[in-house]
Amino acid sequence: MTEYLEMSAAVNELLAEDEILILCHKNPDGDTIGSAGALYWALRALGKTAAVLCSDPIPQMYNYMMLETYSRQFKPKFVVAVDVASMQLFGENNDMQEFSQNVNLCIDHHGSNAAYAYGTYLDADAAACCEILTELIPMMGVTIDPHMADCLYTGIATDTGCFRFASTRAKTHAAAATLMEAGANVEELNSILFESKSRARVEVERMALESLEYYFENRCAMVCLTKEQIAASGVPAAELEDITSLPLGIEGVQVGLTLRQQPLGSYKISVRTVRGIAANEIVTCLGGGGHGRAAGCEIEGMQENVKAAILREVERALKKLDEQGGELSL
Amino acid sequence: MTEYLEMSAAVNELLAEDEILILCHKNPDGDTIGSAGALYWALRALGKTAAVLCSDPIPQMYNYMMLETYSRQFKPKFVVAVDVASMQLFGENNDMQEFSQNVNLCIDHHGSNAAYAYGTYLDADAAACCEILTELIPMMGVTIDPHMADCLYTGIATDTGCFRFASTRAKTHAAAATLMEAGANVEELNSILFESKSRARVEVERMALESLEYYFENRCAMVCLTKEQIAASGVPAAELEDITSLPLGIEGVQVGLTLRQQPLGSYKISVRTVRGIAANEIVTCLGGGGHGRAAGCEIEGMQENVKAAILREVERALKKLDEQGGELSL
Repeated sequence: MTEYLEMSAAVNELLAEDEILILCHKNPDGDTIGSAGALYWALRALGKTAAVLCSDPIPQMYNYMMLETYSRQFKPKFVVAVDVASMQLFGENNDMQEFSQNVNLCIDHHGSNAAYAYGTYLDADAAACCEILTELIPMMGVTIDPHMADCLYTGIATDTGCFRFASTRAKTHAAAATLMEAGANVEELNSILFESKSRARVEVERMALESLEYYFENRCAMVCLTKEQIAASGVPAAELEDITSLPLGIEGVQVGLTLRQQPLGSYKISVRTVRGIAANEIVTCLGGGGHGRAAGCEIEGMQENVKAAILREVERALKKLDEQGGELSL
Repeated sequence: MTEYLEMSAAVNELLAEDEILILCHKNPDGDTIGSAGALYWALRALGKTAAVLCSDPIPQMYNYMMLETYSRQFKPKFVVAVDVASMQLFGENNDMQEFSQNVNLCIDHHGSNAAYAYGTYLDADAAACCEILTELIPMMGVTIDPHMADCLYTGIATDTGCFRFASTRAKTHAAAATLMEAGANVEELNSILFESKSRARVEVERMALESLEYYFENRCAMVCLTKEQIAASGVPAAELEDITSLPLGIEGVQVGLTLRQQPLGSYKISVRTVRGIAANEIVTCLGGGGHGRAAGCEIEGMQENVKAAILREVERALKKLDEQGGELSL
């Protein structure tokens, strides 16, 4: 069991320690990397030694954060995890196994946080871990400089789909305002994060749209990418995450499904739902989990069987919704 | 010549007047309509009479603003224009001609504002007219209620591409935070404004990606839609405009071309370029025109000939850029 900390207690721990290792989650996204980057530079600003460890390579697009990654010369005395909801999400590469067993402090915004660290600062209402750090870093007595602001803006912008997702709250915008005042290069960052797509990425979108199928009178839309397609495109698996918002973005669709075949053949299924349909209930029978509007599971089998299995659950959820008197207004 | 007003002077004019007509620009967007909506409800909250006039129909997607549109029973004593940069932008339908000649007050954020009103409040640094009104309405002594907040958020979100465009500043995010605190239904609005695409629209995107071709070592990307494809999709031609940003959004592409065949067979060509390549120069020889980064022309002929004609001009522009020492950094 973890001890849940106030923000000030988390700050005091960080201030008291040195030689700090910062852990990211596997398949790193802008929020875990941005959080690590901002915290790394904040600790450095206090004269401390720090390094960042992630079990997967950090995508090149985030090179501007200029992180110092862990090497074995570094002997950490304190381990902090940022944006990592559970032990499994650390992954197993590099030296992660060694350090992820004894996390001193976890800073996170996932309601599902598994309380694996000795101490945890959790704000499940925050849109991003970087939103938390926008408040926490100044409490450490560190002024957010333009570079830290870039890191923090990255996490907030990517985790909220640039302020579109339902997780965006007034405090999220207030944090963005703070970061712009601190000198975040928002125009350049938005261009890197959102505007430019690689040819590979465009190719994946083409394949995704080509595979698009509708079910249950167009109330369910499904995208399916085979492992051959994903491999042929050359897009790293981690960068396919936001394809999962495509099917639910179609007018009238209440359940959006994205099937991505994994290298060993199984299918990773992402379920996105409108309000009134519990995404996590849809995947429960298939051994998955998640949130009310976004959940996932992984199934072995032939593509047609996998599709049939998830569609059976979707049908059940749609029937349940109809029995309850239809979709709640968005 | 107009008198440029402080915000407090603009507020005093609005407070002193009654029976106020609010004018929008033609082809109304979220900012002009949102501004009109918020101002209308703020004036109503003060017990005043008001109405909104636009020379084009207000798109149904904005119905939630519940505006009272002008009818001839209403005899305005004071005319306010919101988000209208010049006289020509009023359009000519309805009774607009009558009222647009004598605008008492213009509230705008366009640096190009033509100073056509008797009094003008201009903030050319504001990302949206609604950003200005988020500050102005409370100065009128009106508390922004959730409905006004919805109107104001609409203008800010649409004019900034949901906080992506370079016009977004710290104050823009601060305004969004204020509006969320005031009860704006941001989740629902983002879904209406940005997330939902019609099936027809998704089909057009699929066809566009399917047609995607690269030229000149991938420095030019071209999308081509035939009139049969456009007709089959059922998407109104006006809603295809933003497809034109697709090719230039691909990494490394310096010239993005979008060919849309018109009902009579000719091809409308949209040219988008990176900084350093003049889009309007590319189309000049083909009888077109436009701006430095976005231009267009229309050519008759077989698809292959049309493609060859525009590609010849693109090749010339790329050569010119190379001779000048390559692309200017974005």
